[in-house]
Amino acid sequence: MPWLTSQAPESDVVLSSRIRLARNFRKIPFPNRADFEQLAAVLQLTDGAIPAVADAAHRHFGRYAMDKLTKLQREVLVDKRLITENLVKNPQDRVAFLADDASVSLLVNEEDHLRIQCMRAGLDLEQAYALASAIDDAIEGQLDLAFDEKMGYLTSCPTNLGTGLRASVVLHLPGLVYTRNINNIINISQQLGLSLRALYGDDKEVVGNLFQVSNQLTLGFSEEEIIGNLKSAVTEIIAHERRARKALSLYMKEHLEDGIWRAYGTLRYARLLTEKEVLTLFSKVRLGIDMRLIKEVSADCYPEILIGSRTSWLEILAGTENMSSGELDKLRAETVRRALAAHPGEGRQQA
Amino acid sequence: MPWLTSQAPESDVVLSSRIRLARNFRKIPFPNRADFEQLAAVLQLTDGAIPAVADAAHRHFGRYAMDKLTKLQREVLVDKRLITENLVKNPQDRVAFLADDASVSLLVNEEDHLRIQCMRAGLDLEQAYALASAIDDAIEGQLDLAFDEKMGYLTSCPTNLGTGLRASVVLHLPGLVYTRNINNIINISQQLGLSLRALYGDDKEVVGNLFQVSNQLTLGFSEEEIIGNLKSAVTEIIAHERRARKALSLYMKEHLEDGIWRAYGTLRYARLLTEKEVLTLFSKVRLGIDMRLIKEVSADCYPEILIGSRTSWLEILAGTENMSSGELDKLRAETVRRALAAHPGEGRQQA
Repeated sequence: MPWLTSQAPESDVVLSSRIRLARNFRKIPFPNRADFEQLAAVLQLTDGAIPAVADAAHRHFGRYAMDKLTKLQREVLVDKRLITENLVKNPQDRVAFLADDASVSLLVNEEDHLRIQCMRAGLDLEQAYALASAIDDAIEGQLDLAFDEKMGYLTSCPTNLGTGLRASVVLHLPGLVYTRNINNIINISQQLGLSLRALYGDDKEVVGNLFQVSNQLTLGFSEEEIIGNLKSAVTEIIAHERRARKALSLYMKEHLEDGIWRAYGTLRYARLLTEKEVLTLFSKVRLGIDMRLIKEVSADCYPEILIGSRTSWLEILAGTENMSSGELDKLRAETVRRALAAHPGEGRQQA
Repeated sequence: MPWLTSQAPESDVVLSSRIRLARNFRKIPFPNRADFEQLAAVLQLTDGAIPAVADAAHRHFGRYAMDKLTKLQREVLVDKRLITENLVKNPQDRVAFLADDASVSLLVNEEDHLRIQCMRAGLDLEQAYALASAIDDAIEGQLDLAFDEKMGYLTSCPTNLGTGLRASVVLHLPGLVYTRNINNIINISQQLGLSLRALYGDDKEVVGNLFQVSNQLTLGFSEEEIIGNLKSAVTEIIAHERRARKALSLYMKEHLEDGIWRAYGTLRYARLLTEKEVLTLFSKVRLGIDMRLIKEVSADCYPEILIGSRTSWLEILAGTENMSSGELDKLRAETVRRALAAHPGEGRQQA
């Protein structure tokens, strides 16, 4: 997953940025109201536009028909956030075009006829938007899209009307969680028309301190305004997170470091690990690496651990879906140990 | 502590063996009834016999007057089990003669005028008794001891009458604790006239899975019978412990290994460790090393970790008794990490 690399802007707090554009073809009903003939027509139109899209994106695309994939293959794509669960529900005539570097997904017949998704590592909404926009232009050059002078792009769900744009950023916020400031930030985000919610876990228990923030409004603002608004909010959150980490390292130094190193020791040596446990421990280890406390392992381990701890990925690795939870936990622990060993840092191990 | 070495008989289960002989001088009241003049006389008599003792033991002895030591120095000697708490209570005229290799302690004016203690690593009661007996002979060659044809050696407390012999062995019994067989073993030991009790912690919570087993009876049996009886009981317990470990590694392999490796990860990386936590984690790590699961660290770390985790030792190390519990926990974690790093095993780290 190149877009999860640690060599990216603000990567101590921001995992990734994503732009999604919702588009529909004129004179064909939205997917939830279309018959199979109409869905097939949407797919045919898109197939015809892919060469132009590939040209505009400077990328090669693979074509993944949902009804040709196994359940497990689909799960892995969902876990990697390349496709949505929605695309998988009724697989017939649902297709994903995925760029080889996993930075672009084109979803056909999801909630809308076409969804253009562009991912970048770190905080990089502009580049993600530039790419999505180039792809959008290539499609508009070939096909007739449903656009209304007053309403903008027409979409299946009214929350996407107008720009059809959803910009989102995944944030690692252990500082705000540990200093109990996260709820303030969530409230303020809502007041700013943004949605901030846990990526894993629920309201009662956030798992892994990962959050996704995205715009709520798509109508009445330009794309640049939406992205600018989200970016300035994220920049604020990053500053708050860094201040929280600094406060922790000043006022709770010993306990913070102890917790981080214990998490590292457990990830490095445990023989059984659940998915939830990896996310929880890895949040601490990541904080330790980002704060330059842990130097014996490099930030390059992040994507491997995040992806490698997912059950779907482990099943691919093992070549079977018939594993007990004990076997999965064992393979997960092995995968995590291997990922840590594969990415040594510059610093020698501290005695 | 050479007598804690891992290169000793049955050292996968037995930490150490100890023989203690209680002796008193004729015509002087027992220490709890003696005045200072009488206590001083006991000390003077012992001082005179020390050259002969050193000769017989083939060891050099240091002389440690309890009223000349700091509180901390006395605590360290108690923690190392070289002296007893009893010797420290009223320090005046209480003296310990300690062999340079820590294998022999002669305590003057403890509960009895003289207590001869000999320690050996692993299960080696015979050698410990041979040494104690040689020292006893040297003393009897010089001084007049309180001995009754019918009662044997006279002692301050009637439980020591007869041989004045207490033989004891320290055992590491994680297998019996984890398989919940330890209470059976404790009951059977009592029926055999032995006392088996936790070395740390209490009846409700054993800390570190360390137990001490010793003879209860000193009268009516010869020294050889007492030692033989204890040895055969210990040999039985060792067999039970090894069977329990085998059962664990057969039926709970995954959880056992996971627990052992997590304990290792925590000991190796934690920045704050309490005394109790070290004992608990170290029991698992020791089990892992003894079962040859952990090969990256050698059994030679045992004494350093057992002694190095004690508060008194850390205070000596830091040169101050005015440390907060947080500072102690930090220094303890450092000391443990250093001990593990100082004793690498033959096996490379497992990925």
